[in-house]
Amino acid sequence: MASTRAWILKSRPTGMPDMGNFELREREQEALGEGRVRVENRWLSVDPYMRGRMNDVKSYVPPFEVGKPLEGGAVGKVIESRSPHFKEGDTVFHMYGWRDQAVGPAEKFNKVPPLGVSDEQWLGNLGLTGATAYFGLLRVAAAKEGDTVFVSAAAGAVGSAVVQIAKAKGMTVIGSAGGEEKCAWVREIGADAAIDYKAGPVVKGLMEAAPKGIDVYFDNVGGEHLDAAFATARNNARFAICGMIDAYNGAPQSFRYMARVIAARIQLKGFIYTDYLPEMGDFYRDMGGWVASGQVKSRETIHEGLEATPQAFLDLFTGGNTGKMLVRL
Amino acid sequence: MASTRAWILKSRPTGMPDMGNFELREREQEALGEGRVRVENRWLSVDPYMRGRMNDVKSYVPPFEVGKPLEGGAVGKVIESRSPHFKEGDTVFHMYGWRDQAVGPAEKFNKVPPLGVSDEQWLGNLGLTGATAYFGLLRVAAAKEGDTVFVSAAAGAVGSAVVQIAKAKGMTVIGSAGGEEKCAWVREIGADAAIDYKAGPVVKGLMEAAPKGIDVYFDNVGGEHLDAAFATARNNARFAICGMIDAYNGAPQSFRYMARVIAARIQLKGFIYTDYLPEMGDFYRDMGGWVASGQVKSRETIHEGLEATPQAFLDLFTGGNTGKMLVRL
Repeated sequence: MASTRAWILKSRPTGMPDMGNFELREREQEALGEGRVRVENRWLSVDPYMRGRMNDVKSYVPPFEVGKPLEGGAVGKVIESRSPHFKEGDTVFHMYGWRDQAVGPAEKFNKVPPLGVSDEQWLGNLGLTGATAYFGLLRVAAAKEGDTVFVSAAAGAVGSAVVQIAKAKGMTVIGSAGGEEKCAWVREIGADAAIDYKAGPVVKGLMEAAPKGIDVYFDNVGGEHLDAAFATARNNARFAICGMIDAYNGAPQSFRYMARVIAARIQLKGFIYTDYLPEMGDFYRDMGGWVASGQVKSRETIHEGLEATPQAFLDLFTGGNTGKMLVRL
Repeated sequence: MASTRAWILKSRPTGMPDMGNFELREREQEALGEGRVRVENRWLSVDPYMRGRMNDVKSYVPPFEVGKPLEGGAVGKVIESRSPHFKEGDTVFHMYGWRDQAVGPAEKFNKVPPLGVSDEQWLGNLGLTGATAYFGLLRVAAAKEGDTVFVSAAAGAVGSAVVQIAKAKGMTVIGSAGGEEKCAWVREIGADAAIDYKAGPVVKGLMEAAPKGIDVYFDNVGGEHLDAAFATARNNARFAICGMIDAYNGAPQSFRYMARVIAARIQLKGFIYTDYLPEMGDFYRDMGGWVASGQVKSRETIHEGLEATPQAFLDLFTGGNTGKMLVRL
């Protein structure tokens, strides 16, 4: 029988992870039981939230287990099926990432809807990434036409989707990103202004870009960006807290302007896109249309080969991606 | 003509204020114009929010002006009236504090409702303090029977009202205060547990007092207390951000556990009690009843004489008060 390979969590990181926390392990291909499906993965997603699952703490998803394969979004083709719901050749998305071959019960796999978009979109604008942007902006922050929206990590997977959804809905958008090249892309996808956070204090850039202040902040990073949002929030501003990449590796976050929460009656709310699963129909309708029409564009930073997966993941924390970070098998 | 005295903002403080920022100025008593009222103040309120008005920044109330008298809650007796709405001897509350004699247009004064409570209550549980506690807990945080509520500065004016309202509504309450004496009082007014923040890390105390976590946090201080609330929040916890005394004097605040906002879907919201002025009827009905029946008790820390006003204010930032801080003239 053929062998397959999967990335194992070798040890739990403290602070910033490194290659030593991961091990690529080979194992015999298992026989396929009744009701189960075998999928050859084509695309693997790596996402910042995975860092949280590497800690041994209860959270909205259980922690990864040491010595077991890591998990994550993936798209692949069915190569063997013992379920009436799937046949060889079906394209599916699922959560058995970080490995070349996914085997599991049929209910853990989803056939991609026939929207005529490329496969990797199901890990990006039409997947977890896009749904996070959509529900965070429109539901959690209740952003509406005419609002001024600030989004951090705007050249990232979620951030770039936020920029484009906000523009599609008639908002003014200011995005931040690291470096002039990323900022240029943020403007290219429609942002009214882009702030290079590597070029100076975020709060200064934001005050210049939004002299009347912001109504909405979509937070992917926490730290200095969140503090700048506190400093510039207009009355009754809403902050959707989606990610705090600055905090994932254990460093404390420091704020100078947080007391403005009171005077400006700012509301902050954390969320996970799965809170809105009952509304996925709205998301597929709107986002499917925007992706099909080209109003929402995607860009990927692609690493090649299963071996590259941990490095692709680590690069997320040093700004190594523009758009969605993917591994192509 | 007699002369009157008022505390003037001599200079804007940077960081922690000191006596040098204040000056007691004497001036000729002004003649009383038509439609105006003269009040002899009996009680002056000092409150942490006044620190914010000493900065030259736009906020929910305009900043104090340098060289002009400071303002704040006060209760006094009408000694001269040129308005049909007031007569000599009426007890009124108003915002011309920090002075011995208040003169202004009739619409700036409010006759105290005939509830048979002592005068200083209109600066405490039946005034700004009580209304802040009531609306913050019941409206902003939507706290309800069965919730576990954490409140910081629980021996302070607002905090002690929160403790008692929460108990009156059937909640479990954990209060924090500085020192065993204050903690004893927090338990005396009904808290299920009291944490002495001077005796050890707040997060440790809170985890012991609320092993299943908290549903609501009423924040008066920010900083370490807010971080402990992040650490222990249950899913969908609501934080009413009322004050951040740790931040008022300019020091940045640091958080280790803030990223839990996401996994636990915590909601934070800042507020000012005046947002709920249309609902003051509910407040007077409930709080008036609790105060009259003795279910909500008050305690005051009293400084004597107009001269003592700035020191009473400064003492707020070093834990110098149990209950409401007042100046008696």
